[in-house]
Amino acid sequence: MEEARTTGPSTPFVTPQVARFNEPITLKCGAVLGQYELVYETYGTLNSERSNAVLVCHALNAAHHVAGVYAGDPDNVGWWDNMIGPGKPVDTDRFFVIGVNNLGGCHGSTGPKSINIATGRPWGAQFPVVTVEDWVNSQARLADRLGIRQFAAVMGGSLGAMQSLQWTISYPERLRHALVIACAPNLSAQNIAFNEIARQAIITDPDFHDGNYYEHGVTPRRGLRVARMVGHVTYLSDDEMADKFGRQLKHGRLSYSFDVEFQIESYLRYQADKFAEYFDANTYLRITKVLDYFDPAFECGGNLTLALAPAKASYLVISFTTDWRFSPERSREIVTALLDNRRDVTYAEIDAPHGHDAFLLDDERYHRLVAAYFERIAQETAHE
Amino acid sequence: MEEARTTGPSTPFVTPQVARFNEPITLKCGAVLGQYELVYETYGTLNSERSNAVLVCHALNAAHHVAGVYAGDPDNVGWWDNMIGPGKPVDTDRFFVIGVNNLGGCHGSTGPKSINIATGRPWGAQFPVVTVEDWVNSQARLADRLGIRQFAAVMGGSLGAMQSLQWTISYPERLRHALVIACAPNLSAQNIAFNEIARQAIITDPDFHDGNYYEHGVTPRRGLRVARMVGHVTYLSDDEMADKFGRQLKHGRLSYSFDVEFQIESYLRYQADKFAEYFDANTYLRITKVLDYFDPAFECGGNLTLALAPAKASYLVISFTTDWRFSPERSREIVTALLDNRRDVTYAEIDAPHGHDAFLLDDERYHRLVAAYFERIAQETAHE
Repeated sequence: MEEARTTGPSTPFVTPQVARFNEPITLKCGAVLGQYELVYETYGTLNSERSNAVLVCHALNAAHHVAGVYAGDPDNVGWWDNMIGPGKPVDTDRFFVIGVNNLGGCHGSTGPKSINIATGRPWGAQFPVVTVEDWVNSQARLADRLGIRQFAAVMGGSLGAMQSLQWTISYPERLRHALVIACAPNLSAQNIAFNEIARQAIITDPDFHDGNYYEHGVTPRRGLRVARMVGHVTYLSDDEMADKFGRQLKHGRLSYSFDVEFQIESYLRYQADKFAEYFDANTYLRITKVLDYFDPAFECGGNLTLALAPAKASYLVISFTTDWRFSPERSREIVTALLDNRRDVTYAEIDAPHGHDAFLLDDERYHRLVAAYFERIAQETAHE
Repeated sequence: MEEARTTGPSTPFVTPQVARFNEPITLKCGAVLGQYELVYETYGTLNSERSNAVLVCHALNAAHHVAGVYAGDPDNVGWWDNMIGPGKPVDTDRFFVIGVNNLGGCHGSTGPKSINIATGRPWGAQFPVVTVEDWVNSQARLADRLGIRQFAAVMGGSLGAMQSLQWTISYPERLRHALVIACAPNLSAQNIAFNEIARQAIITDPDFHDGNYYEHGVTPRRGLRVARMVGHVTYLSDDEMADKFGRQLKHGRLSYSFDVEFQIESYLRYQADKFAEYFDANTYLRITKVLDYFDPAFECGGNLTLALAPAKASYLVISFTTDWRFSPERSREIVTALLDNRRDVTYAEIDAPHGHDAFLLDDERYHRLVAAYFERIAQETAHE
């Protein structure tokens, strides 16, 4: 937020908006949602040609609040505020940026904790399993609603990047650039394994009640805590954790008990408690499945080049050397498949110590690269 | 077991034995155990000079049943049977091998599920936190009982290797060789984090009852399952999981549900169920703490060289390239500290795809190396 403030009093406060859709949407799993709402925010101004729109897709535990702050709530800063705002790499003085909470989320868009009007009760376990393709389809409807025929760019990191990649396959004509940051063309067995651990922790929590915990007035807090800890460890690099925590003791001496001994334990418990307070378990379960299912090559017999053949966008692909969740090797698979299709690709591996989380952090080389790429987009947009 | 059988009918069946100790032992945490039992097994014959004894230390979820089978139970093969037996790398025709279940274990030695004679009830939460040093001290008493003044070698992998390393510090005169396989001089923040996740899963299971679940007739099965899954993923390499499971589907097609979709999920659930059937949660908690606390350099201001200064043994240190739990880099820290002390060290990094679990597997180069090292020990022993 401090950075946003330095841009001066011209930075307007952000207000979330709701788009209600009454046209049924058929999901990949076969289920049909008769109507649904998407909560979104916008930053900057859509130009008269409607050519400067940028869609920012969120990853596992973020939502539509991408940048800036709400009036009267200065501490709730958007999750990618270091990247997006006036004068920032994605400059909202030039671009019209949209953040949206995805379908199945728990930050206002229709999801498991929403009321299912067919029953008058929360969806709970009945809320369908969603996929990256479903998210992209619902985002396209939001774009229609906002009068955006073609995005200047769709961007995201991690699961967000899977959405920008999918946009180029599902709607090749509707975006000119895709930013695919800290991504993989699909999850490895190890990735799926960590997701499955998180799911098992939630599902076996006695307070889960088969996903219908809302009506019991409880939440599967224990499971969510463990799920969050598993996620958190995989977002950080071993080196980063060594630097940040190492074997530092919480109380300066060992107690030989099951209380917190090491700083890392204290940190994990704190993160877990915080997360379990606000995140919906059914949403978490579904988002881990969204990750597991993402695999554009699957329906092309495992051939990613074939899967990406429809794409027309130009790409900026970025990976981080210490990201062991989605390693640079996985990004290179995407780059190779794009080059096989003779797509325009800029690729960078950034030597950052922060693991998967690096895509959220304020690394100068990373931000300069994104800024330069958006400078190019701005110039192309101006010359169109 | 098949290998053991090929050595012919001369391979005797193994019988576990119990050593009862009535001399109190003071643990590192300050607690005193008035009496305790250790379950152990032996293989081969102690020579008349009592110079051919080899102690095998177990890691997280193994115990005293190191090699061979019990009469009438041909499927329960010792956990390191590919390494230890007649004609094997640790040849029980030449060496007298001892396996022991450590204090606090759940395979027969005194631990949390044993009856505390002071109360007539299981120890449960009251069983003290143990350490590698405590284990080594209790193993030394077992050696006294068996009339072994000096081991030809103490060996182990992972947590077992931490014990062999500690032996050379605690009892430098009582072993000639230490085999330190897939080890680290202490746990990294990431290692501790994974242990903490496992502990939180167990401790927050409503069936844990603050560690006194025995009297409630339940076990914290849900927590143990998650704990085991976390452990399991960290024992395997990403590559190994990719080769073994990849994104293979369990039922050939996607169901878009929370049932098992991928083979890796099925495998993890199976391993978790199996483990939760037989392993004691209080033991698991304590063993993760044993790992966290191990840090011989701690009391020497972080100086491992100083910590290892008392050692007199010769060492065989082995690491595996794809072990991301205890990477070769961590083994090299040990090697460097030993060389600084001018110890005799043989070090090998084995290019194996199996991750941390490689130390348990039958890799020819690895086994040849251990066999050659024991050939050297045998010759030295013969010439003494």
